[in-house]
Amino acid sequence: MAKKIGVLLAGCGVFDGSEIHEAVLTLLYLDQAGAEVICMAPNVAQLHVIDHTQQTQMEEKRNVLVESARIARGDILDLATVKAEQLDALIIPGGFGAAKNLSDFAVKGPDAVVHPEVQRLLDEMVAAKKPIGALCIAPATVARALGGLHPELTIGKDVGTAAAIETMGGKHVACPVDGIHVDAAHKIVTTPAYMLGPGIKDVAKGIEKLVKKVIELA
Amino acid sequence: MAKKIGVLLAGCGVFDGSEIHEAVLTLLYLDQAGAEVICMAPNVAQLHVIDHTQQTQMEEKRNVLVESARIARGDILDLATVKAEQLDALIIPGGFGAAKNLSDFAVKGPDAVVHPEVQRLLDEMVAAKKPIGALCIAPATVARALGGLHPELTIGKDVGTAAAIETMGGKHVACPVDGIHVDAAHKIVTTPAYMLGPGIKDVAKGIEKLVKKVIELA
Repeated sequence: MAKKIGVLLAGCGVFDGSEIHEAVLTLLYLDQAGAEVICMAPNVAQLHVIDHTQQTQMEEKRNVLVESARIARGDILDLATVKAEQLDALIIPGGFGAAKNLSDFAVKGPDAVVHPEVQRLLDEMVAAKKPIGALCIAPATVARALGGLHPELTIGKDVGTAAAIETMGGKHVACPVDGIHVDAAHKIVTTPAYMLGPGIKDVAKGIEKLVKKVIELA
Repeated sequence: MAKKIGVLLAGCGVFDGSEIHEAVLTLLYLDQAGAEVICMAPNVAQLHVIDHTQQTQMEEKRNVLVESARIARGDILDLATVKAEQLDALIIPGGFGAAKNLSDFAVKGPDAVVHPEVQRLLDEMVAAKKPIGALCIAPATVARALGGLHPELTIGKDVGTAAAIETMGGKHVACPVDGIHVDAAHKIVTTPAYMLGPGIKDVAKGIEKLVKKVIELA
């Protein structure tokens, strides 16, 4: 039977939502591996909306679930309705949305608050000993949510972000973009993706490895 | 030297813009093939904005170039500034945006009007004998723009759309999702993508073949 893998989205676009390439490549490799994909996102306002041509803030409001549905082609659940028992594993693509909408790490750093439904689902996954994959900056939100477990995580090699992860209780391990770091004890798999880049073919290598490892652990 | 391949986007999301999976897979296979990618989109208001969770129209306005920039991670040009002499080939991903914002085929069928900058660039590409790739519903806009050439195109097997393509002067050729149709005389390559689906792994096969063929012809 196909393994059910949740994909937790955070909007649609690198600067205010889920990084689109990372999210789509996650969906591609999951589908190629025969997994059943369950996309989800919190039903909450985005922190803000960024004009991606100029990286300036726009004066409008958008909803994380509604925008995430663009990546999921409409096939998406409200995170609040998803429980760990429905899933065999959970993967969180990166993009600023993972640190603006799933937590506010991008604003508050190590003092970030994790969205309560994100915290709940991550706690449920850990309690059920089910694997969690996190790409790019998403491991910072995982560190804030699960720092008490002292998980090993990578966001590549950015010194400031790595230090923040350690402040939150995680242990940061440097990793190249075509690699993954596996915390076998906690079943947490991470890859730097666009924290390192530089291009889509580069991030694809690490994401493909992450998806395979998460499915293997599930 | 790397071939320069233009990718003409039409927004960000299957129901009102470029189909995100098709666009990202196009970027992936171009990067893997060593091409230099030049993303572009018309600087024009979207026909409308669709809530992708419910497929209902939202009361807001969005700009095609600004939304397309999400897929391009900000690295995008205004279509009006791009000339065929800068490109070795052009690829147009699908999604309703290709038939709502690049032309209004989704509204007017065979009587569609092609956006003038799209028409100009397609005419320039043809005059320069440079290849054009089109995915999913995008061949309908190509048929409207270039029907006078009687190009061979595929959108899969949808009878109504195929008939509309023939009305506009094209010749429709049925094709499976993992295949491409090549009009060698006009250097036009098409694949059904999500006109057939059903999943991302399926559309990926045809898109990878299309990208390789377009680069080979360039």
